[in-house]
Amino acid sequence: MDFELRILGSSSATPSANRHNTAQVLTLGNQHHLIDCGEGTQMQLMLYKIKHQRICNIYISHLHGDHYFGLAGLISTMHLQGRQAPLHLFGPPGLSEILSLQFKYSGTNLNFKLVFHELDTTCYKKVFEDKSITVHTIPMEHRVPCCGFIFREKLKARPLIKEKLPEFLRPPQLVRLKWGEDIKDETGNILVHNREVTLEPKRSRSYAYCSDSRYKPSLLPYLHHVDLLYHEATFTDELRERATYTFHSTARQAASLAAAAEVRHLLIGHFSVRYKDLTPLLQEAQEVFTATDLATEGSIFSVKE
Amino acid sequence: MDFELRILGSSSATPSANRHNTAQVLTLGNQHHLIDCGEGTQMQLMLYKIKHQRICNIYISHLHGDHYFGLAGLISTMHLQGRQAPLHLFGPPGLSEILSLQFKYSGTNLNFKLVFHELDTTCYKKVFEDKSITVHTIPMEHRVPCCGFIFREKLKARPLIKEKLPEFLRPPQLVRLKWGEDIKDETGNILVHNREVTLEPKRSRSYAYCSDSRYKPSLLPYLHHVDLLYHEATFTDELRERATYTFHSTARQAASLAAAAEVRHLLIGHFSVRYKDLTPLLQEAQEVFTATDLATEGSIFSVKE
Repeated sequence: MDFELRILGSSSATPSANRHNTAQVLTLGNQHHLIDCGEGTQMQLMLYKIKHQRICNIYISHLHGDHYFGLAGLISTMHLQGRQAPLHLFGPPGLSEILSLQFKYSGTNLNFKLVFHELDTTCYKKVFEDKSITVHTIPMEHRVPCCGFIFREKLKARPLIKEKLPEFLRPPQLVRLKWGEDIKDETGNILVHNREVTLEPKRSRSYAYCSDSRYKPSLLPYLHHVDLLYHEATFTDELRERATYTFHSTARQAASLAAAAEVRHLLIGHFSVRYKDLTPLLQEAQEVFTATDLATEGSIFSVKE
Repeated sequence: MDFELRILGSSSATPSANRHNTAQVLTLGNQHHLIDCGEGTQMQLMLYKIKHQRICNIYISHLHGDHYFGLAGLISTMHLQGRQAPLHLFGPPGLSEILSLQFKYSGTNLNFKLVFHELDTTCYKKVFEDKSITVHTIPMEHRVPCCGFIFREKLKARPLIKEKLPEFLRPPQLVRLKWGEDIKDETGNILVHNREVTLEPKRSRSYAYCSDSRYKPSLLPYLHHVDLLYHEATFTDELRERATYTFHSTARQAASLAAAAEVRHLLIGHFSVRYKDLTPLLQEAQEVFTATDLATEGSIFSVKE
């Protein structure tokens, strides 16, 4: 299954000539999960030929405009282009009220079901689950209620080694083997040792999206060993005081978290418009955590199984 | 004084790969008047190097998202970039409520004064006036409350022919001459004939913006002899029934209005995304009214004095 992140916007607060406001598409299998939706997201989706029909869920981290001002337009376009599949929207209190008011005044009755899931941004909580993934919120520390999201593949079944399977096994027993159990007789004696007839399962991949936040070391337990970590890095460390004051982070702080959490790969984004050239931010982060990349418009990051 | 229109968006309903939603900048002297503000307007302003600091007034014709979803983002950017000058916003009932809700949840206290002028979209009414222009609403016929806007220069002073002015004239009399009066003595005898010492004033220019509307011949009295008329032309006449049903107009209908109103120059826009090539719309309009142009992204239309 695909596990691929596409960056649509990397600019904080206001867009700049070459940078859009925050939005990312996480493609899991054949479904797109849209994370934040700054102004112009629907145009960015068009530019990168990402079909909005395949977006199943949209997650909004907080209600600063640079993270959601593209949402009403995108939903309107889905409506006008005939979407019928339900759309699940996860966001903080207030988001549903804003959209409802906008649709009231435009006389819009959506021709698909918009299912709103109000988030408690203060805690770690499972907000979505399907057969292959879970999504949890993680609490950020920002000027308004704000959370991040962790996407994790569920544990995968152990592949069966067909040529080693005894013939007496029936389907329910095969299922148990896939999930790591031994097969026993009625008295508890092991008939088939799991490890002898199965292989190690494929890795379960994970992506953590840390939206706008002051440097917050208490996030560490949530981020431990994730494959891909996005963390905002609005400023270089020279402006650490300004970062603290505005509830943002520096590139060095983002990298420190990545190093301490032993993640595989760090992406930094949400850059202040003052940085025309992003090299200083990247270098600063790489000094602390080598496997860092810039999450700039159009870039794609795949996580292999 | 400059009297110049810049088109920022020409697409109806949804943006397309090359077309943005409706927004136009009318530059009068050194001030910009922004007319409608579809998603992405602030990026289009950047692209064309139009300084949002010089926008004094914003006019929103109606609350369909393709005409105002860029507004909250633009106002946020003005705020974040330190605007202090008041901003006048003209729009239908509901717009102020929507913005207030968005700013409440983002914790935004604007550092400039946003003066909201609620429009009665059902009538012709003066909504703005300064020393050189007036702005009136004109009622459109659309699915939600919607109006257009007419921008008119005020009558201009008659230039004085200095070498022909008698020496006894004092400043208040000169002012009266500039505005077309003769100068008389106490008994009513004409001492100075206005036409002998003044020239014809420069023309007062006008621009009429007809936003989304079903074909509405009753607009004619408002549009008579305007220099520049923008009229939506969502469809070609082949789809006239669809235009009527959706409360939009065809290119032929827009041109018929322009011809009947004897305007100088017609611009058509708000094109359905079905038209990849806009030539059929232009040709159809030009068959009825030759002086027609496409109001496409980036184009500039100046009205000479």
